[in-house]
Formats: sequence, structure tokens, C-alpha cells
Amino acid sequence: MTQEITVRLGHRSYSIVVGGGVLSTVGERLRALGVGSRAVLVSDGSVLHLHGDAVTQSLRAAGFSLTQVVVPEGERAKSITVAQRGWDELLAAGIDRTSTVVALGGGAVGDLAGFVAATYMRGLNFVQLPTTILAQVDASIGGKTAIDHPRAKNLIGAFHQPRLVLVDPDVVVTLSDREFRSGLAEVVKHGIVADEAYFVDVERHAGALLARDLPTLERVIAGSCRIKASIVERDEQETELRAMLNYGHTVGHALEASTAYGRFAHGEAVSIGIAAAARLAHRLGLASLDTVLRQERLLEALGLPVRLADVDQAAVLAAIGRDKKARDGTVPFVLAPRIGEFRLVFDVPPDALRGVLAELTHAEIAS
Amino acid sequence: MTQEITVRLGHRSYSIVVGGGVLSTVGERLRALGVGSRAVLVSDGSVLHLHGDAVTQSLRAAGFSLTQVVVPEGERAKSITVAQRGWDELLAAGIDRTSTVVALGGGAVGDLAGFVAATYMRGLNFVQLPTTILAQVDASIGGKTAIDHPRAKNLIGAFHQPRLVLVDPDVVVTLSDREFRSGLAEVVKHGIVADEAYFVDVERHAGALLARDLPTLERVIAGSCRIKASIVERDEQETELRAMLNYGHTVGHALEASTAYGRFAHGEAVSIGIAAAARLAHRLGLASLDTVLRQERLLEALGLPVRLADVDQAAVLAAIGRDKKARDGTVPFVLAPRIGEFRLVFDVPPDALRGVLAELTHAEIAS
Repeated sequence: MTQEITVRLGHRSYSIVVGGGVLSTVGERLRALGVGSRAVLVSDGSVLHLHGDAVTQSLRAAGFSLTQVVVPEGERAKSITVAQRGWDELLAAGIDRTSTVVALGGGAVGDLAGFVAATYMRGLNFVQLPTTILAQVDASIGGKTAIDHPRAKNLIGAFHQPRLVLVDPDVVVTLSDREFRSGLAEVVKHGIVADEAYFVDVERHAGALLARDLPTLERVIAGSCRIKASIVERDEQETELRAMLNYGHTVGHALEASTAYGRFAHGEAVSIGIAAAARLAHRLGLASLDTVLRQERLLEALGLPVRLADVDQAAVLAAIGRDKKARDGTVPFVLAPRIGEFRLVFDVPPDALRGVLAELTHAEIAS
Repeated sequence: MTQEITVRLGHRSYSIVVGGGVLSTVGERLRALGVGSRAVLVSDGSVLHLHGDAVTQSLRAAGFSLTQVVVPEGERAKSITVAQRGWDELLAAGIDRTSTVVALGGGAVGDLAGFVAATYMRGLNFVQLPTTILAQVDASIGGKTAIDHPRAKNLIGAFHQPRLVLVDPDVVVTLSDREFRSGLAEVVKHGIVADEAYFVDVERHAGALLARDLPTLERVIAGSCRIKASIVERDEQETELRAMLNYGHTVGHALEASTAYGRFAHGEAVSIGIAAAARLAHRLGLASLDTVLRQERLLEALGLPVRLADVDQAAVLAAIGRDKKARDGTVPFVLAPRIGEFRLVFDVPPDALRGVLAELTHAEIAS
């Protein structure tokens, strides 16, 4: 069954279409938007090998002339050098403002392709075909695009909403176990900050989810897309509400940055970050111990880490100080008083944070 | 007298404040917007020498900590290399999302600074302090930011509205004659496509304008700001109406591109482009000969060129074919049936265009 979720943003509204096999409908769906006849497919070699034919055949059958931009795999796609190559290739292909950039891949491909689409001639049509759980439930929705600065991930970017997002749950069966599980951290995050009933559904069907049962996958992915869409349409440019999606990411990003992005998958770092945020809320008297343990239990049931082994705490704390969300020098934390609720806390005492990091390293709760 | 013009764009609305000496009020006006305490002043050496002290003193007196980014003069500021240096310096200065980028200078400084502000952390507060006529009446208003691609001017950019524009007519007395006159081409353009009464006012006071009479300058500049603001607020991202501001720019940009940006000042190329658009409208039976001559007479009265001497017509035509406004391969022309009116024409016959270019070269009218 194909589900359609609308992100209502006035004249920038768009559909997220979730369903098995939906990738091979991209051509007709794009044509229905009335865009120009030229399209650019941005992807990496592995993803192209798996899904490139279905997408290119659909686009060509719908009458699009197609240019292909192949980018490096993973985070290496998100460099200014790759963006410049993208601009060069678009110019050489005669791409104009009516043309469409189609991103096929995980979060990194979408971020890079979206940045090129946002900045070429001040904005082209953009379509997201996410192929990882992370990209399907989070990164492909909401218009955040970015490339990395050598010293700060996602430092350079723009808000640029896609015209269409096609989420095909069938494709995630090709993911490695680690990549698959990593994406589920964002699923858990959505439940914690926004929707208790959704969290309960994931708790109940964690086994089927891990076993990649297709109906369960489709329901859980569509549910996450719906949560993300409803948050984005209420706060497109993250002035306030959308910050809730940063739950677990303050410590998560710092863990990634302080280990040079080589040790944790993004979702693994977010999972530990969620445990840290949960314990911080408890330590500040905002959340019960049960609320903490419920979050950790679900993450663990999904095969995600919630403990730190050997991490340089000083480096993590320093990285938090450089957080992109800082406002005039203060880093706000998203905390969850209960499952399904969130609060922004601006005055987290450094000692509480240090205490939580120590606690996670020693795996015991000071309650 | 200080005039305030509001650009109404919902939560992105902002004021254009026009008045002698208004530059030295930037600190208190920025503080009133409630932004964070860090500001970055982007400017070039010459402009800083003339106006830097007034601006930095005002910002410091209002409590802002200030970082200065000095960029090359003119179009050389608009390179990816300079943008990268901007990102580096902002990161080193600890700039965050509550901080403000202040552009002090002509159109190139505003375009580059705006692009850096648009893309650093997906968007910082941005303030324009335009110091040329061109920037005051056109480039600083409306949120177009850009850098150049080695093979296409303004190819890479974003829409990013400023929070405030301060237009100080006193500063244009320091411009060279050529730079001063060049800016007036945009003033004439605004009258032709949008406001006959404004055009008549400029016709009547062309002498006082050229003599840089301050009350006349202030009235004419404020009038142009008002016209630009009313167009931008009706069509922020140039889906249709805002295209009228491209009047004279299709041929104008092509003249600049085909002479490697070394021969014409932007306003000079636009002036010839206006003459070309006027004659094209006449040739297509859309405008009277009188409407053509009235446009050329005003441009000439302001010391602007309306004839081509020796220009490679084939190169100009080829450059028009690469126009950024092309839609799926077709370049639309903005034409003026009468003073104060415009029309988008998508099917200009290549022969008509060639005829007009030949006509301008030989300075005779085929009527």
C-alpha cells in the first residue's frame, strides 16, 4: 500500500510518498509536477549499482533528459570540492532553473545534492530518493542541506525544501546490519520527543523491526515521516519547535566530532546521546528514572549502544561548546520530561553534564 | 529627513532606512532587532577607509563585539575562495546563529557577504549598508546573494533577506563619475517598468541628479527603493513579477559576458540593454517609437551609453543563449509597451534580436 504524507508549507508544500517499489515511479511523479525536461541524478557508485537502473529508466521513460553526477560514498561527498564539481557539471549540461536535481542515496548524498540544488542559480527543483533508514525517516524531509567545513560538520548549508520525497522501504533490505540499526536511533528519537503512542508501537514491534519485516518497516517508517513532517511544517527554519529534533544530538554530535567521525555511526552516537539526555533530565529533576530506563531499553533492544567505553570527556565537552545550535555562546539541550514531550533547557550546569558522561562511562545510575 | 520603507515579507519583513548620516546609526538599530552580541563587518579596503570608522564606532558603542572580513575590491570579492575565507574567519571568531553579518560596500560586497551569511550554519542575520547608487537602489534590497562561477557570473547563490538596509545618500558623493552614472541605469529601469510618475520626476531633474544635489538624490534613491521593495514583496523568489527587474539585463549581461566583464560598467551595459529592449519592443509592434526615444534620451541625459561601437554580435547572441533566466532552453525578454508597464515575451525571433543589435551598432532606427 502506498501512503502519501503532505508537508504543508504554503507554496513550498510537497508530498512524501511511502511504499514498496515507489522508486520506480519517480519519472511519472516528477513529470506531474510540471518541471522542465532536464534532470540531474546525484548518487554514489554503490547505490547506483543497486538502484540506479530503476530510477534512470523511470526518468527516461517519462521523457527526461538525464545527467548523472557520481559522488564519493559517505561523508566524503559533502565537501566544497564535490559541490564545485556539481556546479561545473550542471553548467556543462545546460541545467537551468526549471531543471530538477534528484538525490538517490543516504543522508550524505541528499545533503550534498540539496546544497548544490539550493545554490545553483539560487535554487533548482529538488527530489529526494532516500535509500537508508536515517535518510528516509529524517534527513530527506525538511529541507536541511549542507556540506562540511574541514573543522565543522554541516557548517555550510541552506534551507531548501524538496518538491517530492519518495520513500521505498523495500530498499532498506540491502543495508548492512550496522547501517540499518543506526537509522533506528532517529525512529526512537521521534517517539521520545513527539509521540508516545508511536514509541509504544516501536517498543512492541522491536523484534519484527530488527528482522526487517516489511509491513512493520513500512508502518514505522511512514510514522516517523509523519512526525517529522508535522514538526517541519510548524517550524520550517528551526526558530524554536524544530529544535526538538536535536534530541540526543548535542552529545551525539560531540561524540562524533571528538572521535574524528571515525568511530561511531551517526545513529550510534545519537543513541548514546539520547541516553545522556535522558540521564541529564533525570539528574536535573525533570524526568523519572523509569523514563530514562525505558529509552535505554528500547535502544538496546534495537541493537544500539547506550554506554561509553573509553572516550576523552574533555574533548567531548569542548566539542559541545562548539555546537552549531549555540546561541550567543550558550548551548541549549533538548530534554524529555516524559516520553512524548520535550523541553529546551539553556542553563545545563557543566557539572551535571560531566556527571552524566562519567555515569555513562561507568554504567551506573546516580539516582 | 529619514524615511523608512518596509519590505513586507511576513516574518522576514524588514526596513529600508533612507537618510543622510544613517550609516552611523547602525549599532543602535541593530541592537533594537534583538540579535546576538557578535557582528562581522564585511567590506573592502577603499570603502573601509572612507566609511569604516563611522560604522565600527556605532557598532562598538551599541555593545557589539566585532570581527572584520576584508575582501578584494569589485567583482573579485565574489569568488568561492573568498567565500571560503569568510566561512573560515566566521568559524574562528565563534560566530553563531544569533550573530549578524554586516555588508558595507557596493553590490559585489553585498552579494558575497550575503552568500556567506545565507550559507554559514544555514543562515545568519544580515544587514546591508550599500555605498554605491547601484547597491542602494537595487542590489541591497530583495535578498539576492551570489558568487561567480569561473564561467558564469552570479551562478551560485541563495535568496536570503537582510534584517535591515541602511541607505545613506551622503556617501555617494565619494563615487567616481563613472560609478555614479552607472548606478543611475537601475533608477531609469525602475521608472520604465514600474512607475511612469517616477520616470517623469527623473526626466525633470536629471540635471540636479547628475550634479549630485542631495535633496534630489535622496528623493530619487528613496523612490527607487520603494519601487524595488513593492516588487520584491509581491514576488520574493522571482517566480514571475520580479522578472520585470531584469529589464535591459538580458542584453546587458550578454554584453558584459561577451567582453569578459572588462569593458562595460554594469550600468553602462544595462543602459545599452535598455535601448535594445526598447527597440525590440518597437520592432515587435509592442511599443511606439516615441517610447523608445524617451528611454534613450533620459539615459543619454544621465551620461549613459545607448549605442554599441564594435561588439562581437555572435558572442553577444551566444551569451544570451546561456542566460540564467532561461526556462527549459528559452530565454524570456522583459519588454515595455509603454513607460510604467512591462510584459514578458518568450518567443522573441532571433532575427528581431539580430536586427536590433545591428541597429544599435549603426545608430539608425528601422521603423
